[in-house]
Amino acid sequence: MRLDGREFNELRPVSLHTSYLKHPEGSVLISVGDTKVICTASIDDRVPPFMRGQGKGWITAEYSMLPRATAQRNIRESSKGKVTGRTMEIQRLIGRALRSVVDLEKVGEKTIWIDCDVIQADGGTRTASITGAFVAMVLAFGKLVEENKLTEIPIRDYLAATSVGIHGENSILDLNYEEDSTAEVDMNIVMTGSGQFVELQGTGEESTFSREQLNHLLDLGEKGVYQLIEQQKEVLDHLAAYIPVKER
Amino acid sequence: MRLDGREFNELRPVSLHTSYLKHPEGSVLISVGDTKVICTASIDDRVPPFMRGQGKGWITAEYSMLPRATAQRNIRESSKGKVTGRTMEIQRLIGRALRSVVDLEKVGEKTIWIDCDVIQADGGTRTASITGAFVAMVLAFGKLVEENKLTEIPIRDYLAATSVGIHGENSILDLNYEEDSTAEVDMNIVMTGSGQFVELQGTGEESTFSREQLNHLLDLGEKGVYQLIEQQKEVLDHLAAYIPVKER
Amino acid sequence: MRLDGREFNELRPVSLHTSYLKHPEGSVLISVGDTKVICTASIDDRVPPFMRGQGKGWITAEYSMLPRATAQRNIRESSKGKVTGRTMEIQRLIGRALRSVVDLEKVGEKTIWIDCDVIQADGGTRTASITGAFVAMVLAFGKLVEENKLTEIPIRDYLAATSVGIHGENSILDLNYEEDSTAEVDMNIVMTGSGQFVELQGTGEESTFSREQLNHLLDLGEKGVYQLIEQQKEVLDHLAAYIPVKER
Amino acid sequence: MRLDGREFNELRPVSLHTSYLKHPEGSVLISVGDTKVICTASIDDRVPPFMRGQGKGWITAEYSMLPRATAQRNIRESSKGKVTGRTMEIQRLIGRALRSVVDLEKVGEKTIWIDCDVIQADGGTRTASITGAFVAMVLAFGKLVEENKLTEIPIRDYLAATSVGIHGENSILDLNYEEDSTAEVDMNIVMTGSGQFVELQGTGEESTFSREQLNHLLDLGEKGVYQLIEQQKEVLDHLAAYIPVKER
Amino acid sequence: MRLDGREFNELRPVSLHTSYLKHPEGSVLISVGDTKVICTASIDDRVPPFMRGQGKGWITAEYSMLPRATAQRNIRESSKGKVTGRTMEIQRLIGRALRSVVDLEKVGEKTIWIDCDVIQADGGTRTASITGAFVAMVLAFGKLVEENKLTEIPIRDYLAATSVGIHGENSILDLNYEEDSTAEVDMNIVMTGSGQFVELQGTGEESTFSREQLNHLLDLGEKGVYQLIEQQKEVLDHLAAYIPVKER
Amino acid sequence: MRLDGREFNELRPVSLHTSYLKHPEGSVLISVGDTKVICTASIDDRVPPFMRGQGKGWITAEYSMLPRATAQRNIRESSKGKVTGRTMEIQRLIGRALRSVVDLEKVGEKTIWIDCDVIQADGGTRTASITGAFVAMVLAFGKLVEENKLTEIPIRDYLAATSVGIHGENSILDLNYEEDSTAEVDMNIVMTGSGQFVELQGTGEESTFSREQLNHLLDLGEKGVYQLIEQQKEVLDHLAAYIPVKER
Repeated sequence: MRLDGREFNELRPVSLHTSYLKHPEGSVLISVGDTKVICTASIDDRVPPFMRGQGKGWITAEYSMLPRATAQRNIRESSKGKVTGRTMEIQRLIGRALRSVVDLEKVGEKTIWIDCDVIQADGGTRTASITGAFVAMVLAFGKLVEENKLTEIPIRDYLAATSVGIHGENSILDLNYEEDSTAEVDMNIVMTGSGQFVELQGTGEESTFSREQLNHLLDLGEKGVYQLIEQQKEVLDHLAAYIPVKER
Repeated sequence: MRLDGREFNELRPVSLHTSYLKHPEGSVLISVGDTKVICTASIDDRVPPFMRGQGKGWITAEYSMLPRATAQRNIRESSKGKVTGRTMEIQRLIGRALRSVVDLEKVGEKTIWIDCDVIQADGGTRTASITGAFVAMVLAFGKLVEENKLTEIPIRDYLAATSVGIHGENSILDLNYEEDSTAEVDMNIVMTGSGQFVELQGTGEESTFSREQLNHLLDLGEKGVYQLIEQQKEVLDHLAAYIPVKER
Repeated sequence: MRLDGREFNELRPVSLHTSYLKHPEGSVLISVGDTKVICTASIDDRVPPFMRGQGKGWITAEYSMLPRATAQRNIRESSKGKVTGRTMEIQRLIGRALRSVVDLEKVGEKTIWIDCDVIQADGGTRTASITGAFVAMVLAFGKLVEENKLTEIPIRDYLAATSVGIHGENSILDLNYEEDSTAEVDMNIVMTGSGQFVELQGTGEESTFSREQLNHLLDLGEKGVYQLIEQQKEVLDHLAAYIPVKER
Repeated sequence: MRLDGREFNELRPVSLHTSYLKHPEGSVLISVGDTKVICTASIDDRVPPFMRGQGKGWITAEYSMLPRATAQRNIRESSKGKVTGRTMEIQRLIGRALRSVVDLEKVGEKTIWIDCDVIQADGGTRTASITGAFVAMVLAFGKLVEENKLTEIPIRDYLAATSVGIHGENSILDLNYEEDSTAEVDMNIVMTGSGQFVELQGTGEESTFSREQLNHLLDLGEKGVYQLIEQQKEVLDHLAAYIPVKER
Repeated sequence: MRLDGREFNELRPVSLHTSYLKHPEGSVLISVGDTKVICTASIDDRVPPFMRGQGKGWITAEYSMLPRATAQRNIRESSKGKVTGRTMEIQRLIGRALRSVVDLEKVGEKTIWIDCDVIQADGGTRTASITGAFVAMVLAFGKLVEENKLTEIPIRDYLAATSVGIHGENSILDLNYEEDSTAEVDMNIVMTGSGQFVELQGTGEESTFSREQLNHLLDLGEKGVYQLIEQQKEVLDHLAAYIPVKER
Repeated sequence: MRLDGREFNELRPVSLHTSYLKHPEGSVLISVGDTKVICTASIDDRVPPFMRGQGKGWITAEYSMLPRATAQRNIRESSKGKVTGRTMEIQRLIGRALRSVVDLEKVGEKTIWIDCDVIQADGGTRTASITGAFVAMVLAFGKLVEENKLTEIPIRDYLAATSVGIHGENSILDLNYEEDSTAEVDMNIVMTGSGQFVELQGTGEESTFSREQLNHLLDLGEKGVYQLIEQQKEVLDHLAAYIPVKER
């Protein structure tokens, strides 16, 4: 049994509060247990210089934490004058993951800016960011459909992410902060609705893992991602007609 | 009649959602109309170098906006690598205003870090930040009292802030974004519960104002601040016994 | 009686050494007591991106102190790699104040760069900067008239600034450094020749002030500003014909 | 057949020029095909603040490319004034990977600084850096043994890294730049001599991969890592007596 | 004959306005023709970390230009967020030059901060800075003697600097801006009162110079430096008793 | 006799490994004793903004050291977020020196980027950089001739650099690190094949030098530079037909 009473293969309670903010084209407040992230998607009618003239769109992500999202206050990156390596790694991951399920040709020369701002952190902020950002992005595309700027929502599949890990020799799903900070192995899994991998990042923290352990972790992660995608489908139900989705 | 139907001397609806977050010693989500700010107060058992060994406390504030708090997405200050002049001006104002009603001797060698993060902006973000930050700070002091680290809440008086301005030749209270961006004169007023001024910042935007106009604006602002303080008192009611407050 | 023997309502000796430097279009060395600021105005035939194509001009200001303008040497902002909050607040104030009395439409698509460099500081550097910068700016406009690039000097009124404060319960005019650093209340007043307010910044330093005290301070400040404007008029006498000035 | 004539499961020629530089405690010039990286290990008798007083060592890595390591000249990060996200991601990976096979308790309060400077790039610079850095680190530990500062080389196992990917629907080993830039899936595998995973980073580039494809890639990567470790063992042969190595 | 009517071996008019500012321990406003530099010397009772515990003093210099010291306004280095290469080169030169004539052992563990701020530039700002900074430094040492913190002024010799160059095939002394920007060869010469070289920096600007030309330039420079030192001696006359000076 | 057994007028062994890298248009690994520098020349078909439209080329240089080029590890400039004064001084020197022997008109609107990366340092890194960079640049020009983009190599003369100094009262040639760090006088000499000076930088390190000593140093330096140029000619022999060289 786990520290918070969950089964080894049990997600924390997840909620997706869509259209949480007034200004962005798409927004969601995602809660995964005590982890809360405001995800927004903004449409910009330009693409970055290296993409110009190709007729394709681009998706870029930024990630940040409020100073007091955590138990100890963190110094703001704006005060430090630079973004940490951890932040850069996370925002590159979010952008890459979202781009893998979007048909950028169909987007046209637009940039989708994804912002994930963690207002409360309890482990799994990067995977919650991906799961929430996908919803915010689809809502923003939905708005473009509504305004007749697109005829369909240009995604190839659903996308969600969760973490798995080895903690005290047990494989567990969806680690909270306390579990995460003492786990021997930590793995982030980003998958599509049809069960394809998009990103797999497994790390032994001063530790290693075998091929067999890897297989157990992947089984757990797959199960978790499918549950998250069910919740995404519920809140995006009104847009279902515009989303061409693959079979699993 | 104003753009949103309010009277010239009418505040927007205000709400104070206290203890909004899990980790900070004090936190509040303040809404003033569509302006929403997460205010937190964090206790640090050290003071900055210039204050060491004096036995006094210190209060410092930081202010930021989520990139999509506004109609157009803003570049993050962490990406720019520096904090703008506007942000610095606002965070200096918030810190100065709070320090004016706190008895820093009674705080002891502690720093209270105030963080005001605007998640949705519709004018008056700096005055909403002050009004909310005061509540978060008192909650954090309340926690120190509860833990027997303080015997009373070391404030001298309540504190709130609002804006007033001249818009199309009319003096109005609590400007929203649309009013603020077209006002000829804009004034921020920070006052205490007993009716003293703490800070007064009046600015003609490519315009000027007379002594008589100034007096009208001050009358309006005083009225607004008193209403805000009534709402602060309601949500801080459980701590009233520990707050030594002046008569007006 | 004050520390330096002045009356409560007495300015320090003021001098304006015009055309102090060889290269700038307008320049002045202003002394207010021991505070000395070199103010220059430079004409640039472009406007910043957000102003382009509107046919209007722009005025922007920068402020700095030599490292040894003060009793203790300060670290240069160029060595720190960033401008402090205090500097940004002051340079925003100077720019805003000057813009309020200039008819930017008549300036045409030009930027006036104002530089205020404090070479010796003894309190009131920001108000001395405004008073001096106004003169430098008018001299630069005078040069444009002389070169037939403008037909009149596009200002609506004179402009000067001074400080007032409450020190040991007395209201006083034009605080020097020693007074300023121990004052309970400190207020900067920027006014026009016709007695309109442009900017009012009153701050209780760990203190507050009443409406009645505010009124005394405003009376003192008005008197001081009028004296400063008399001195500006003297040194700008040769340009008087090109300056359309309002009655008080 | 591949672009450079290799089989799908064939590494490029690898060489390890040990003690390449005069000053560092350990150094190696690793070549993997046309990719050349100078890896050095420096011993510092202090640990970072967050590690002090624990009696444990620390390993940290930095990675950089010469501006003309690539076909197009890159701007130096020192000129930009900041390190890119890619660089941070890579140097965090290198440090984490090395720490996983070192017994930090046995190192004592020392920091091992790893520097990986790419002087010529042709794909796989991060995996070549890990493979080379492991050798440089062991050489530096060997020097500490020689100076009687350690009694054994405090590693638990050998460590090497390679890349695998899906390119034109084929799974291939050790991608060069041309293959890497057109691959649909790219995976970096860091493994130990006994066949445990340390780090697994698989990414679909605007693409995804199935569980079956993942298994093929892992098989290929395992084979490549074992070959690299054979070459490490050859150049570290003189230190073999001090290296306690696990069975596979 | 030169552009401004001088002989090839003639300095521009030089003036040294000592004790120009109120706060610094030593200050001078030096004018060399239209080049004007405020030089200050500040005493700090600490030395930088790399000097601690040696009982020796240190001298460090900073150099800057007001934005409008030049015909075209320059962007402030504090706005750019970094100091240019040119500035760094000059401030390193000034510090090195002054250190060469000071007996740092006799200074004790103190830092002399030299600040050279160019308020008007017309060529030769670095050599004027050295000549002026020497005077400011001696004045600051004089103040330490006066306060009985030193028994003598710890300099070994006088020090001044000038520029020489080849312009239109003629060797000339003390180049103004117009000459400097079109000279083929430019050389800065820093010398002592006894005729020793401290620093020699000769540069062909897209050009070269022969050994014979070098000798002519050195003859001219020597003559100029001796004249500058005569002027330094005049303004430092009251301290002559405390300055142990070498014969030439 | 010197510390490493050399005569006072003896260079260290010099080698020039040309075309050391695959990607750059010109590259060389120069060794001068234990000092090793990778010099590359890259052709860019644009010029910087201040050169546009003049039909002339530009040459710019960057210099850096690997962190462990030295006995103690140095912090990377990219980690510090800024380039040191020493680095800027050196890269300005390298660029200026190379430009003095190139006919920029004949280059056309191209920039030659010179990169000098010190991989091992033992004194004289800036002079080795100049000597090596000249060769890399000529190789790059040779490539342009080969591709028929130039008809000749647009240089006016050969160029090399060495250091001389006064060490324990002896004048010596080509100082290694140990000599350099204890020398009283240090001078860098950049000269052409025909015996003209390009740059002369002599510095007394808390010391001075006489005209007579200067003459001895120049004699030594001249001899050293001529030997270096002989070695350059050998490795550039295949391009000799395209290099129009002056008589000495």
